[in-house]
Order: sequence, then C-alpha cells, then structure tokens
Amino acid sequence: MAQRQTTQRTAAGSGFGTTAADLPTVADLHAAAERIGPYVHRTPVFTNSYLDAESGARLFFKAENLQKVGAFKMRGAANFVLQLSAAEARRGVVTHSSGNHGQAVAAAARARGVPATVVMPRSSSAVKRAAVAGYGAHVVLCEDGDAARAAAAGRIEAEQGATLIHPYGHPRIVAGQGTLALELFEQVAALDTVVAPVGGGGCLSGISVAARARHPELAVYGAEPAAADDAARSLAAGHIIPVEQPDTVADGLRTSLVQLTFALLRGNGVAILTVEEADIIAAMRLIWTRMKLVVEPSAAVTLAAVLAHPEPFRGRRVGLVLTGGNVDLDHLPWLQG
Amino acid sequence: MAQRQTTQRTAAGSGFGTTAADLPTVADLHAAAERIGPYVHRTPVFTNSYLDAESGARLFFKAENLQKVGAFKMRGAANFVLQLSAAEARRGVVTHSSGNHGQAVAAAARARGVPATVVMPRSSSAVKRAAVAGYGAHVVLCEDGDAARAAAAGRIEAEQGATLIHPYGHPRIVAGQGTLALELFEQVAALDTVVAPVGGGGCLSGISVAARARHPELAVYGAEPAAADDAARSLAAGHIIPVEQPDTVADGLRTSLVQLTFALLRGNGVAILTVEEADIIAAMRLIWTRMKLVVEPSAAVTLAAVLAHPEPFRGRRVGLVLTGGNVDLDHLPWLQG
Repeated sequence: MAQRQTTQRTAAGSGFGTTAADLPTVADLHAAAERIGPYVHRTPVFTNSYLDAESGARLFFKAENLQKVGAFKMRGAANFVLQLSAAEARRGVVTHSSGNHGQAVAAAARARGVPATVVMPRSSSAVKRAAVAGYGAHVVLCEDGDAARAAAAGRIEAEQGATLIHPYGHPRIVAGQGTLALELFEQVAALDTVVAPVGGGGCLSGISVAARARHPELAVYGAEPAAADDAARSLAAGHIIPVEQPDTVADGLRTSLVQLTFALLRGNGVAILTVEEADIIAAMRLIWTRMKLVVEPSAAVTLAAVLAHPEPFRGRRVGLVLTGGNVDLDHLPWLQG
Repeated sequence: MAQRQTTQRTAAGSGFGTTAADLPTVADLHAAAERIGPYVHRTPVFTNSYLDAESGARLFFKAENLQKVGAFKMRGAANFVLQLSAAEARRGVVTHSSGNHGQAVAAAARARGVPATVVMPRSSSAVKRAAVAGYGAHVVLCEDGDAARAAAAGRIEAEQGATLIHPYGHPRIVAGQGTLALELFEQVAALDTVVAPVGGGGCLSGISVAARARHPELAVYGAEPAAADDAARSLAAGHIIPVEQPDTVADGLRTSLVQLTFALLRGNGVAILTVEEADIIAAMRLIWTRMKLVVEPSAAVTLAAVLAHPEPFRGRRVGLVLTGGNVDLDHLPWLQG
C-alpha cells in the first residue's frame, strides 16, 4: 500500500513514464476498452462533403464531444477509477481541474460509487463548478495558480488517503484515452492519418500507441495552438520545454507535456502542426455551421491544422478527433470584442 | 403535359389534398425512401440521460439537423425533384423561401442536374442568399411579403415553364418528409409517442401517415409556438385558421397549415402542444449544452413541448424530431438584449 501510494504521488508529479516498463501498450488499451465499455459511449464518426472539398482530403471526425461529460476525458477517468482497489475506492479520489477532467473524474467516480473531490480555483465559473457538483463530486475552492491547486489537492490526498488522478500523466489515463483510436480504426477502414489536439498529451500519446501497434504506416499528427506550442518545441529540442503563461482560446490545451506523454510522442514518431488563434476560431465556427456539432476551441484545432497545413493530407483519408464540446454559450469567441 | 402543369399549379397554390386520392399513403413514403436513399443521410438517433431525467421519459432524438443542407427539408425536395419528367427537369424548378426549403430545392436540383431558381426577399440575410447560391441555384430577389414572393415565383414558372415546388403543400413533399419516421421506427423499437414541430405541417403530416400505417397505437404530437398556433386553433375549430403575422423565434414555424396537411393531421388524430418563446429558447440551449448539437429554435420546440407538458410523456418512449440546425451564429436568441 505504501508502495502504491508513492507511485501514485510520483505520477501526479508527472515523473511517470521515464522507463519502458511504465509505458502503456496496446494490450493496456484493449484491456481499458473492455473495462470502460459499460461506462462510456462508442461515439459516432461523421463526414462532411463541404469540408472534404475545402481540405482536399477525406475527413472522418470522431465525435468525442458526444462522449459522456462532453469530452474524451471520461475514458481515462473511468479507466483509472475502475482499477482502484476496494480500499482505495473507499478512501476516494481527488483531482484539480477547472475543465473537462474534473467533470470526468466526478462522473467516473459516481459511476462506481466512489467519493470524489475536485479542487477548482475560486476564479472558475459558477457554471463549471455546478457541472462538477452536478456529477456528485465535492468541490473545494482554492486560490488561482498551479501551485495552489496542487497544494490543495495534495492536502486532501494526505489527509483522506484519497488517490490523486492526474489529468494525463499516468499510464491508466493514457490507455483510457487511447481507446478512442481503437474505436476509430474499427469504424473507418484504411485511414492514412490521424490528427488530435495536444495539450498535456494524454489523448495524442494514447492514439500514438494504438496507431503504432495496429497500423504502423499511419501518420499521427498533433495539432497545437502556436500560442501554447510546448509539444512542438519539446519534440524538436528532444527534451521537455514547458509553455509559460499560454494565451490561447483553446483552454484545454494550455498545459504542457510530461515525461510519460513526451516519451510516447517521441517514441512513436508523432509530428506537431501549430495553428494560429484566428484559424482555431474559424475552424470552430466551420464545424458548428457545417457539421451542426457544438465543439470547443480545443477540438477545432484539428480541422484548423488540416486547413492551415494541407500538404500532408491532400487526397488522404484523415481521422480528426473532436475532443470535446464544453463551451460557455454566453461567451463565444467570434462574438468577443 | 397540360394536365400535369395544371396539377402542379394547384399544388403550389395549396389547394391540394382535399380529396382522399390526393393524400399520400405509406406506400408513397416507402417509394420515396427508396427513391431519395442515395441523396440523403440516414440521420442518427441520440439519447441523453440528463434530459431523460429532466423529462421523466425516455427520449430518442432524430437528428435531422445532421441531414444534408442541415434540415429534413432535403427529403421532400429530393423526392419532388427526382419525380420530374425529363422535359420538366430541362425547364427547371422554382421556389420561394428564405429558409431551409430554398437550400433543399437548390441542393436536390443540383444533385439531379436540374436548373433551380430560388426567390428570396431583399431583406433576407447575405448569409442565407450565399448558402442557396452555394448549392448552385439562381437567386432572384423580390420585395418583402408573401404576395411579392409568390408573384415573382409565378412569373418564373410562367416564363420558363419551371415547376414550382411548394414547401409543404404537395403529396410528394409530405411523402419525402415522412421517410424520417420510417427510419426512426427502424432505429428505435417500441416507441410510444413521436413529437415533431409544426409550421406548414409537411413534416408532421408525413410522420402521421407513417405512424398510422405502421404503429396505429402510437401517439403523434405536433409542437407549435403559442405565438404561431394556427395548427392548434385549426384542428380545434375543424377548419383552417391561418396565423396572422406570427412573432416567434422559431422562424421555420411561422407558416400555416394548408388543406393537404390539415386533412392529414385531422384524419390521423394528431394533437398539438403549444409552447412559449422563453421555453423554446431554454430548450434550444439545453440541447446545445447537453447534447452538443447545433439545432435551430424550430427544432427545439419538441423538447420544449415535452418539458412544458410532461404528463403524456412520463415513463414513455418518445421520439423527438430535431428538424434542423441552420442558425445565425452571430445572433443567438439567448444573447439578444
């Protein structure tokens, strides 16, 4: 137990994944898919002839905005919570997130009847807090800033023996997110390429594991805001270069890679395409207008990347991951002065 | 040919449907489904556990917002255009519409290589005109008002020998729209009830034909803005009472029943539920927020009706038709002062 506790804490501190033994394999993804099946949606894949014509490619959109809690994050959170021991489950889970991961942990914990605490900054919107509370989690407010959030979560971890669930820096999370690629490969034959957003890299690195194992020739691209381009810089430099105070509309992609996700992206030969803010907003609006899907800015970076960098995609069959659809409908980016 | 031309003109003037021979049957719907199959999407059906809990029912949303041109109107337009004779096809089609029907006629005509003219009021937005033109139709501008629109379309009909396609007052249109119900019955077993919006009644009356033939016990409800409640008044009175200058956010539902749709709704025992403007906007926002689907106000009246009138739906399996998703993203109703 002490050992497990320590491992947990290391993962939360994002030290995981520096040795091959820590890296999730496609077998872990298949086990995750089996495990989480009853708790997640098998999301549909959409095509759109207008966007095919615009891009010169054949696009297949994996609609994780229609996933439970409105984002792929439910996959990793469910895969984590379902692997807790009975004793761990009794002590509960904790995370700090003002976004989709917080809702996902809350929903996954409720599905198993596990107590959950989500640390959120005081500055987070009442709507987001209500969403987390709506999934049955206990919301603890803290001061703004990563340090304050981590400290508050650490206190709950220590005092209650709760298990901390990092949003991307753990093999269970990566394996859970990667299940969306296994589905996509079943749903669409003969894909040439997959494009997914990259923030902390949990989703993209999970996809890279599935792609390398199942379709070694398939090209995997990460789409990243130029204003938060730590993945592009880190892979180019060969070591992690965290992003400092990123200012991007894609609020889900402000985070930086950790050792685990960096190792997987590098090892699996993932390339990064960066996109400008205006392109993200335009792509988001295109998806709303043409596909009638509510997606958040972080999801739209995929289409933005394909439209801004058409060369590698022309004439190809391209999977794009629409990662989430949790948007503040009172503050749409094209309506901001 | 002269005979056909006359029939066409009567239909356009909405005198169709006063005799049983004019009424479409379920055989017409099946023939339409076969005919239009290659030109339309088989749209998905979505469920949502949150909205189930809110309504106390089990809701199945038929997502015609994901249909080609973003609305069910593509079904009827395709069914009409595909039945033109070779000579009629050469002379082309004409309609007057500032909404989804105009886009649908344009797209259906292009699919068969038929020239199309869409009469639109000068006051219609540049976005809507561009959408119609984008589907390859010739746009003719006219003054505002039903009379000016009908006159302009009538001139094109007379001068070019073009076939006028009424948005709902024709058996081919009703049969085309009704195909969505055939699909829904295949996709969802054991429905108790179907709820669809009612404007001119083409969609709702087509559904009523499918329901009576295939599931005689199934209850069919029309959902209608209280501010445009001609269907509710007309069915109560036993004769058509057109709505005068309706002021509703549901811009697709400002039209009134015609003889054909009135006869079908009355004959098939359809009941109407009316909803207030605030309820329509709230339901639209709920669908965007919880289902991540872009739907227009006219589509949201279905959920609004189920939430405002829960009694007939409690514990039942209810199909709701999300008729379209064409929205001006610069002017969302909850952001209007």
